[in-house]
Amino acid sequence: MRVTVWGERFLEGESLPGRPPPINYASYIDEARRIYPDDIHEAIASALRGLLGEDDVVVTATLDDPGHGLTDEVLAATDVLIWWGHVKHIVVTDEEAERVCRRVTDDGMGLIMLHAGSGSKVFRGLMGKSCRAAVLRQGDDWEALWTVMPSHPIASGIEPVVVLLHEEMFGEYFDIPTPDDVVFISSFKGGEVFRSGCCFTRGKGRIFYFRPGHESHPTYHHPGVQQILANAARWACNDTPSNVTIPYVLDMKTEGWFLPTPVPTGS
Amino acid sequence: MRVTVWGERFLEGESLPGRPPPINYASYIDEARRIYPDDIHEAIASALRGLLGEDDVVVTATLDDPGHGLTDEVLAATDVLIWWGHVKHIVVTDEEAERVCRRVTDDGMGLIMLHAGSGSKVFRGLMGKSCRAAVLRQGDDWEALWTVMPSHPIASGIEPVVVLLHEEMFGEYFDIPTPDDVVFISSFKGGEVFRSGCCFTRGKGRIFYFRPGHESHPTYHHPGVQQILANAARWACNDTPSNVTIPYVLDMKTEGWFLPTPVPTGS
Amino acid sequence: MRVTVWGERFLEGESLPGRPPPINYASYIDEARRIYPDDIHEAIASALRGLLGEDDVVVTATLDDPGHGLTDEVLAATDVLIWWGHVKHIVVTDEEAERVCRRVTDDGMGLIMLHAGSGSKVFRGLMGKSCRAAVLRQGDDWEALWTVMPSHPIASGIEPVVVLLHEEMFGEYFDIPTPDDVVFISSFKGGEVFRSGCCFTRGKGRIFYFRPGHESHPTYHHPGVQQILANAARWACNDTPSNVTIPYVLDMKTEGWFLPTPVPTGS
Amino acid sequence: MRVTVWGERFLEGESLPGRPPPINYASYIDEARRIYPDDIHEAIASALRGLLGEDDVVVTATLDDPGHGLTDEVLAATDVLIWWGHVKHIVVTDEEAERVCRRVTDDGMGLIMLHAGSGSKVFRGLMGKSCRAAVLRQGDDWEALWTVMPSHPIASGIEPVVVLLHEEMFGEYFDIPTPDDVVFISSFKGGEVFRSGCCFTRGKGRIFYFRPGHESHPTYHHPGVQQILANAARWACNDTPSNVTIPYVLDMKTEGWFLPTPVPTGS
Repeated sequence: MRVTVWGERFLEGESLPGRPPPINYASYIDEARRIYPDDIHEAIASALRGLLGEDDVVVTATLDDPGHGLTDEVLAATDVLIWWGHVKHIVVTDEEAERVCRRVTDDGMGLIMLHAGSGSKVFRGLMGKSCRAAVLRQGDDWEALWTVMPSHPIASGIEPVVVLLHEEMFGEYFDIPTPDDVVFISSFKGGEVFRSGCCFTRGKGRIFYFRPGHESHPTYHHPGVQQILANAARWACNDTPSNVTIPYVLDMKTEGWFLPTPVPTGS
Repeated sequence: MRVTVWGERFLEGESLPGRPPPINYASYIDEARRIYPDDIHEAIASALRGLLGEDDVVVTATLDDPGHGLTDEVLAATDVLIWWGHVKHIVVTDEEAERVCRRVTDDGMGLIMLHAGSGSKVFRGLMGKSCRAAVLRQGDDWEALWTVMPSHPIASGIEPVVVLLHEEMFGEYFDIPTPDDVVFISSFKGGEVFRSGCCFTRGKGRIFYFRPGHESHPTYHHPGVQQILANAARWACNDTPSNVTIPYVLDMKTEGWFLPTPVPTGS
Repeated sequence: MRVTVWGERFLEGESLPGRPPPINYASYIDEARRIYPDDIHEAIASALRGLLGEDDVVVTATLDDPGHGLTDEVLAATDVLIWWGHVKHIVVTDEEAERVCRRVTDDGMGLIMLHAGSGSKVFRGLMGKSCRAAVLRQGDDWEALWTVMPSHPIASGIEPVVVLLHEEMFGEYFDIPTPDDVVFISSFKGGEVFRSGCCFTRGKGRIFYFRPGHESHPTYHHPGVQQILANAARWACNDTPSNVTIPYVLDMKTEGWFLPTPVPTGS
Repeated sequence: MRVTVWGERFLEGESLPGRPPPINYASYIDEARRIYPDDIHEAIASALRGLLGEDDVVVTATLDDPGHGLTDEVLAATDVLIWWGHVKHIVVTDEEAERVCRRVTDDGMGLIMLHAGSGSKVFRGLMGKSCRAAVLRQGDDWEALWTVMPSHPIASGIEPVVVLLHEEMFGEYFDIPTPDDVVFISSFKGGEVFRSGCCFTRGKGRIFYFRPGHESHPTYHHPGVQQILANAARWACNDTPSNVTIPYVLDMKTEGWFLPTPVPTGS
């Protein structure tokens, strides 16, 4: 399995080209740099290298790489793409986002979308919805992830409740299509709830959305979160995709054209 | 629409025949009698009479009625059965439970199962699972019901969050089959979550499970809860069921036996 | 209930502005005009007027109307939009398609998408997928629609198998997201299958895709099809939508902000 | 992975104790013995041994074994149970069926239920429904299995359509709960359709129902069917189940009882 962890990289300076700094960004970005000195994508990649098998390869790519780290070469070498982005969604081009979506749906590349990546072009393109949370609080309180689908591969070995002592809050209504499976539901100290671990399938691809992971909290250092991400990578990997293709075939003969030729007649 | 609200009736005295009193029952049953002087089934029926249409008929039946209020006559006159039971599940016979299940699956009677009715023979029979909650607390704290499927008929006109200031707690994992739809998710003061509003279909029947409603709290007097139950009754009613039947038909001719006779040939 | 049946209108002449005529169009369009002398949208509207209630209003709109029949005024006056389009998808602008999608997801307008409308900008926008069928045959053979979810409102009163003696074929794999419900599955004379009656929810909106309806066949004159469309209109109508909204609310106080004020404290 | 293939064994003589011979059984059982000289369970086990990994162990058990091959010892040594039964469902005791169900739901044993096993006590117990097909034909015609969920692990490497030239027919309505996933839909020469590859989850367990496999046809010698069964075994195996348990815990302290102790307070 070849996993690529993609990250947007923390903002250098205070703003995007031509844009004001994101709300509250200055107040927590120093803390983020302290928690993740090599940025978030490297922290995740490092954790996965310890949890996945010897034959599994984990690399990273970022928005600062050529082609924003989303070239055909990168994608062709990726079985599962893990995506962390927050304030730079707009920098990814429509073409790049479309390329990622196609690689998921048509080739079966797995996709694990983290936290604020719900607002990325890639995720919204695959979902066809705004994917916004109704309420949000940049707080410092606990989040508890409850397993509600213990049969699911992503829940393998996971505790009935995984507690993150400090996280940002997203609250329902979460504006997504009905997930194929909801594996985890979060509660927050404020009393809000969120469908925090959601599986979707699109064409040949498997997609897992996982809510936790604000950059100012040490979420990706939590062993339970790391195990969930490793489980999710294995689940999302579809290395022998189905042979289904999407051609239009006109003027086929009417009956049993898919039967072996010649059609057996009574013998 | 003909709605029958079925109730087990509060225990008179302290125990079931041959059984010790349920845990903590004595401590709250007087409060229950004060809140629901005519018992819970009558409170629900009364609320529904005010919310449903003029042509809709709402009656009640109880475990004390002949045949435990679950005779063929009662069921034949019922489009939607609302069920509240808690400590007397064992008194309902296997035959009666089976009769209710069949009326749901084969005739399309709607079923709204309330609160501890998750443990009833009827619900477990339809679900094929224990339907138990992993954690439970007979407390006096708030429950918040969050709407997570605003498109659903049962959510029509319902606030994004319905707050019950005093309720018992059930917490995940809730041991049910994957619901067709999850309409409401609850959080509790203790930080637990629960899939509190779940839709299932079984054969021709539609089933809604709704968690709130411990007898010592005024839950069924809450306007939001009453509206949810009225919406659920309308949703669950299947007064013109599909014509599908379940026969075994042997020795059918091979091809297009379902086509109109004679089979049109080119004209 | 206010239903608007939208149609693209049959092509006059042989081609779209600047485009070659669609494949085979000339070969069947005269037949289509014979079967539906007032075009398809009028045939559907006429059938629904006979099946829906006295208080329900059914109007039509077309691509030839001002704003392509998709103005704010038209949409604001529509509870359920029924859409038939086939060869002119490209003429609908991105803005118009987006406006329809938003009216579905944010306001709860129902949408019934017919036949080749699977390729429209509106449907693909809501689904986030190509929505293509793997195989297709412009034939003249039978299609059989089997009811596989008899509990569903759209199946109410519908026969176990509805037979259309002459239809075009679409075959799996159908490139859509996992539907919330599959109500009908088709088989075709050639042995292909298709998920022909699929329900989706997106935000507050309910969406039904229904496969049959090639313009050269009298599908919309079939009583079973007409009943399915009437059932679908009733199902898709969400005239009292949920109160859920999609704002971002920052800096909320932490705990129980949704509780009634003043927060009860132990009394 | 430890796989146990369970079979009821072909009837010796003509009937079950105290029962008439099954309909048409005599007419095809000799053919079955010719196709599967070591019975069906051995044919399946043999195929799986060739397709699964070196570390995977595949054994067989039958109704003729002590405890009907369903003892605690057998189940404790089984990660995935594959079940083929047809005419002897009644011989399995209620206790044995319940033991298998509990091992699935509470311990996460995978279950692959084949063909007429839909009518077994085990399957009906897990589904809570009759699990009957509306129509059935003991014919000799083709069945075509269409992949409708190419992202699913059970479809990995499978052709878009798998053709069995000779099979028995089951037709919809198939009286099952809504599956979590439908991976394959069959068509038959007669024009019927069937949801032939269905995934369910119950508690910690994963269940796959696969329709083909009448004993008088060489279905389990087909390479495509063998690959589907090998895929299904891998998918159903849950060797590190979730830690969720199903206890009732009364009188928990109210708030954040699941938080690490001591509860962090602001540091």
